[in-house]
Amino acid sequence: LPSILINGCEATGISVLDRGFQYGDGLFETLRIRSGQPRHWSRHLARLQLGCERLHIARPDVTLLRAEADRLCAGIDDGVLKLTVTRGEGGRGYAVRGKPTPSRVLAVFAAPEFPAAHASEGVRLRVCDTRLGCNPALAGIKHLNRLEQVLARAEWQDETIAEGLMLDSENRIIEGTMSNIFCVRDGALYTPVLSRCGVRGVTRDRVMELAGQMGLTAHEQDMGLADLAQAEEMFITNTLISLWPVRQLEDRHYAVGPVATRLRQALEAADA
Amino acid sequence: LPSILINGCEATGISVLDRGFQYGDGLFETLRIRSGQPRHWSRHLARLQLGCERLHIARPDVTLLRAEADRLCAGIDDGVLKLTVTRGEGGRGYAVRGKPTPSRVLAVFAAPEFPAAHASEGVRLRVCDTRLGCNPALAGIKHLNRLEQVLARAEWQDETIAEGLMLDSENRIIEGTMSNIFCVRDGALYTPVLSRCGVRGVTRDRVMELAGQMGLTAHEQDMGLADLAQAEEMFITNTLISLWPVRQLEDRHYAVGPVATRLRQALEAADA
Repeated sequence: LPSILINGCEATGISVLDRGFQYGDGLFETLRIRSGQPRHWSRHLARLQLGCERLHIARPDVTLLRAEADRLCAGIDDGVLKLTVTRGEGGRGYAVRGKPTPSRVLAVFAAPEFPAAHASEGVRLRVCDTRLGCNPALAGIKHLNRLEQVLARAEWQDETIAEGLMLDSENRIIEGTMSNIFCVRDGALYTPVLSRCGVRGVTRDRVMELAGQMGLTAHEQDMGLADLAQAEEMFITNTLISLWPVRQLEDRHYAVGPVATRLRQALEAADA
Repeated sequence: LPSILINGCEATGISVLDRGFQYGDGLFETLRIRSGQPRHWSRHLARLQLGCERLHIARPDVTLLRAEADRLCAGIDDGVLKLTVTRGEGGRGYAVRGKPTPSRVLAVFAAPEFPAAHASEGVRLRVCDTRLGCNPALAGIKHLNRLEQVLARAEWQDETIAEGLMLDSENRIIEGTMSNIFCVRDGALYTPVLSRCGVRGVTRDRVMELAGQMGLTAHEQDMGLADLAQAEEMFITNTLISLWPVRQLEDRHYAVGPVATRLRQALEAADA
């Protein structure tokens, strides 16, 4: 079975003239594969669509993308599908000349192996020095300009730290390097506003919806480190980890609470 | 003659697992080729070195880069050399595992054709809506995360507008989409501070040095659109255009003044 399809063909190399390589001029999605199927396809495609609209890239045909995804995922019981769409090939220079054909790259990776205790006992987080710059034009979408995340993730090697929390240039908490963050205060759920920077995760959206179904009040709100210090619970989410409670942020300890546990169970039940 | 060398080999495709493609995790330089030689090599390599240090990428051996550049530039009377260095191949995920070997991509392009009047009579500029986010960790260097420039350059199609001026999220003027900006007030030269965002151009540095040699006072200073409205002269610089006076910014007109003219002549004399 091929593990990479570039514009529908088994290949490993993309033109260095592709604007994805030249400028990070594109978008990506990371999907979980279960039982030969990419999970939450519609949600990932909706975010991809939003990103394409924001960057004025013509999104490749959905039926074609799905056929290529199915071809790659067939027979894979558990794995990861990375789907990348770029503006396509262009000459040198930022200006888009003519109507380039967007490139699509689908690649399958092994499922990540996480310690089971991350989900049950929670994880340790640190606060990163690397900040997120604010740019509403790029906020929310999963574009290919990821140097801030790369630099933030390079700040620590300690394997007992599972994730780093990133603040924006004005000291607001935004997200983890690879996850969204939630906290619980007075029984209500809070997660940062992502209108200036940050990636709006598919699992973040699912958690907000599940919270509503459970009768939990859920707020998007600007927050700082002081707000987290007063949280009763904290947890992080993404497509691959689902939900991990936070048991420690820097020197502060948190309990694995009932809200995180219920939401994780709800996520898993929906995925079963 | 080959027009692209990837890690020393004639090729056109880079692995989609290269972190340059995955995350824009790398840097580039755009050099002018004249008489078979890349111009201002040391200055471009110094900026590349700074970028590599900032991103913790091991810069490829300079002798090797120069040999590859010479191989590509041989016999080219006038052209453009684009030199890209990325962190190299990595698996999925922001964390850098092990010690990836940086990738080097050298590509030759035709010399751009600009109207001669751009240099003599000046150009029209617009002010872009797309802003530059502030992140000191990425400021000054020429990294591959260029979506802000791509979006800004996509704002206009009018070919009589040569460049768009970009402001940061706090209304400071920073640069053009592909150039640095200078203005003259009371006989002194001013150019924006690039400590929060923006690219520190090789020609910008040269202009600052030439200004000093001419006895002109040159300042790096935060400035806004109101400051430009009071300027006696304005001009933009980059490696390929050298220096173009600005004759119009939105509705405001400027004269092609003596400072821009002298500095352009000095740049050309040094390049002759």
